[in-house]
Amino acid sequence: MEVAAKAGRKVDAAWAREAFAAIVGDGGVLADDGALAEFHDPFVPTGTAGHRPSLVVQPETVEQVRACVALANRSGICLWTSSMGRNFGYGGSAPVVDLTVVLNLRRLNQILEIDVEQGYALVEPGVTFHQLYEALRAMDAPLMMSVPDLGWGSMVANALQHGIGYNILGDHASALCGLEVVLPDGDLLRTGQGAIANSPLWNSHRRGFGPALDDLFKQSNFGIVTKAGIRLAARPETILCGTLRCEGDGDVGPLVDVARSLLREDVMQGVPMIVGTPAETGSEAGQAGEGGVFTYASLRKVLRPGRWNLRFGLYGHSTMVEARLAILRQRFAHALPQAELEIRRYPGSAGLDEVEPRDYITAGIPNQLLLARLTGVFGPDLGHQDFSPVLPITGDMAVRYDAMVRDAMDRHGVVGAVGMMLRDGSMTGASMIMFDRREAAQLAAVRAAVGEMGKRAAEWGCAPYRAHVAMVDAVADVQDFNDHALRRTYGRIKDALDPNGILSPGNHGIWPGKG
Amino acid sequence: MEVAAKAGRKVDAAWAREAFAAIVGDGGVLADDGALAEFHDPFVPTGTAGHRPSLVVQPETVEQVRACVALANRSGICLWTSSMGRNFGYGGSAPVVDLTVVLNLRRLNQILEIDVEQGYALVEPGVTFHQLYEALRAMDAPLMMSVPDLGWGSMVANALQHGIGYNILGDHASALCGLEVVLPDGDLLRTGQGAIANSPLWNSHRRGFGPALDDLFKQSNFGIVTKAGIRLAARPETILCGTLRCEGDGDVGPLVDVARSLLREDVMQGVPMIVGTPAETGSEAGQAGEGGVFTYASLRKVLRPGRWNLRFGLYGHSTMVEARLAILRQRFAHALPQAELEIRRYPGSAGLDEVEPRDYITAGIPNQLLLARLTGVFGPDLGHQDFSPVLPITGDMAVRYDAMVRDAMDRHGVVGAVGMMLRDGSMTGASMIMFDRREAAQLAAVRAAVGEMGKRAAEWGCAPYRAHVAMVDAVADVQDFNDHALRRTYGRIKDALDPNGILSPGNHGIWPGKG
Repeated sequence: MEVAAKAGRKVDAAWAREAFAAIVGDGGVLADDGALAEFHDPFVPTGTAGHRPSLVVQPETVEQVRACVALANRSGICLWTSSMGRNFGYGGSAPVVDLTVVLNLRRLNQILEIDVEQGYALVEPGVTFHQLYEALRAMDAPLMMSVPDLGWGSMVANALQHGIGYNILGDHASALCGLEVVLPDGDLLRTGQGAIANSPLWNSHRRGFGPALDDLFKQSNFGIVTKAGIRLAARPETILCGTLRCEGDGDVGPLVDVARSLLREDVMQGVPMIVGTPAETGSEAGQAGEGGVFTYASLRKVLRPGRWNLRFGLYGHSTMVEARLAILRQRFAHALPQAELEIRRYPGSAGLDEVEPRDYITAGIPNQLLLARLTGVFGPDLGHQDFSPVLPITGDMAVRYDAMVRDAMDRHGVVGAVGMMLRDGSMTGASMIMFDRREAAQLAAVRAAVGEMGKRAAEWGCAPYRAHVAMVDAVADVQDFNDHALRRTYGRIKDALDPNGILSPGNHGIWPGKG
Repeated sequence: MEVAAKAGRKVDAAWAREAFAAIVGDGGVLADDGALAEFHDPFVPTGTAGHRPSLVVQPETVEQVRACVALANRSGICLWTSSMGRNFGYGGSAPVVDLTVVLNLRRLNQILEIDVEQGYALVEPGVTFHQLYEALRAMDAPLMMSVPDLGWGSMVANALQHGIGYNILGDHASALCGLEVVLPDGDLLRTGQGAIANSPLWNSHRRGFGPALDDLFKQSNFGIVTKAGIRLAARPETILCGTLRCEGDGDVGPLVDVARSLLREDVMQGVPMIVGTPAETGSEAGQAGEGGVFTYASLRKVLRPGRWNLRFGLYGHSTMVEARLAILRQRFAHALPQAELEIRRYPGSAGLDEVEPRDYITAGIPNQLLLARLTGVFGPDLGHQDFSPVLPITGDMAVRYDAMVRDAMDRHGVVGAVGMMLRDGSMTGASMIMFDRREAAQLAAVRAAVGEMGKRAAEWGCAPYRAHVAMVDAVADVQDFNDHALRRTYGRIKDALDPNGILSPGNHGIWPGKG
């Protein structure tokens, strides 16, 4: 068997295994099928060709990462980086190019610094949301995290993938502040103020002298991030968790419009989320394909009652939280007089035991509840593929998006949820299409449905903010201004930084040799 | 005479003038000394060699910009871009390399779009702060600007230089959203969502699929920005302008510490500024060198009474502004019981006639008051060079910074103001060292003083956030991590995007042929 290598090279897997073991030790190389299984796309039937890791290499130090990169350059072996690999809806640790060696950073898992006064943590890519949360609790740090739906993933990798949380600083990519990067030729770079060796500002001030390179290393294959600063909000006096429940199918329009104004006026904070609960239509028996359990009836068991639910948080000094709430009440009452507002208040220091589970996310407490609820209803073989286009934040677009996604799902006989994450300036669709991961035919139907959604969104000038490894080229194709000038530019930077084309070829549609 | 060209080429100025005139018309090329004077460093004595423009070329369209770049690549002529060229404290339009052709973008001065609902303007680089303000007033747009000290400059260029204003979105570089860029080889790129030709989100959502390239074109010579989206805050119901006056020399310590907490807790907003007014020392007669008028006594006429003044703004719904104010009053009273707080409230729609001039900046109204006040006291030949290091936001550092700058000024016999712009995570020193621009000896003393300040700040691990064209290499030198890995990386990107090395060589210490 061979591992993926740059064009014109052939590299034997057994040779590669030994060569990497010489760097990271025998325990740092996974090669047998059982151990590799965790690094496959978790939602494709076992044995499916394409996007398979050939080996998994797990360095423990930055120097080992650099040595692995040096080996790759000497031998032509291609590497694909992953951290925890928990982004299951997008392929987990699966590489774009079949049989690429996965350089997995799970063992680089140190929290290097927590600065309470300036408000940041400096962490390695193997640090999970759970891990940092525990560390902050242990020192009773007056800091608050933003967390995504599931807390088991890498904080750094989530941010590098432009991941979104729901709290203050919920735009995780923008919350990064200062990176250490192993470049594809093995050079070691620190960005921003970190370019000054004795800087006291690496993780608290975003830019240095000259262009900021941090964003180059997000959603790209231009380098391997080995340390990152993450800005953390001050722990507020009060956290107010709210839910607005609407019953009308068309309520999502005024709901998005009122939330847009409240976000623009800095009354709402963080990233409020709208989730739709599909109404009973009477015609849904045939919609779930062969899935049996994958029906709208099952989905309704997971979701909250009502047609649309808006989940949001207010954070800060109590007097300011109450001032925000009063404005928000008035606006909601005016825009959606029938909607039902529920609120819960917590002190900012409240922990797992004091917060209602449904408020964990809003309160910045990492958890696995969503997964537990989903597998509780859909079983342990639940697979899902996520479709998440960036959309104009208007009520009209919300209505069109919901209709389009439901239509595509219906026509392909698949089932999923429709949601939207709201920010000042845009909203990001959050649709999770579900299937039985043992069934290749269901996966094919889901991929076809998501592909169709992508084409429809492209007609609106919109594209997903991230995508499954099997679909990255299709998304990159949508970026067509001036004959794909962006892709050309990516290609030129790629070849300058990675002349041998060994790092994560194909990631986000960026290929070597296209500059 | 020759114009600056890539190594190994010689290009005659008369030939260059004709070649550019064939693209932009005779009226678009300035070549005689009188017309060129405006594009020299405004603060060096007439005729000083170094950093001189040889020609100024003023295209009117993006296609003309691309044609100029094509000519530069064919002929080897080097171009230096400037927009309004009003960053006088850093050299105005002056290029790093003597006799470079200045490609001045002043005639690209269209406001292409103002979107009130999503909150942005799409503008060309010749649009000034004044110009956008007038346009917003004319349509009574419910939007608010952030403005720097003087309103005559280019909004785009200020943001590309990492410029800082004082309002919401006062980090102007981060307020940019979506760029159109002519690359050094003439290719035309749109960043972010603008990479989708029919995107409705180019100027309202910051990232596309793949790495965001926007920051590459700030403080760099990697491309010429011809259009930029600028995010604008919602016009608040109330603008509260405040000043806290402290009399004690050491008050700057607690002042910075309390402001840091208030910024971290999202009670203070925007970019509060502290300005020091030098105390009378009795020993200052000899400190002002030969300048005569350049004395601390003169400087005190320009600055506000008291030893330290904090200027800040609160913005939003009235109830929220009052909630912020109550917290702030309590904190100030606790930290600085002797300090005197003055506040003025305005409706967000208040214009020039309704706002006190000293509140124009805080209220987001562009103006030229600072310049008028300075030249009123120091005369029309006032020159200044700015020193503005990024520093940890701690009271201790504020005290050390003030002492260091005053010490360096004293020892070089020059005079200037000491200030700090505060943000969550850092503060930026704002020191303006003044001199008579007709006097080469004074300029030399100021440069020596600023050079020494740079060395002292470097010992703390700190560097200026921007710098005069004569000092950019010295600042870049401070970024020394891993044998200047950042500069090496800049060089590789530079050579990939600008293979002929024709665009703004030396800008921010980035030179072609170093990759």
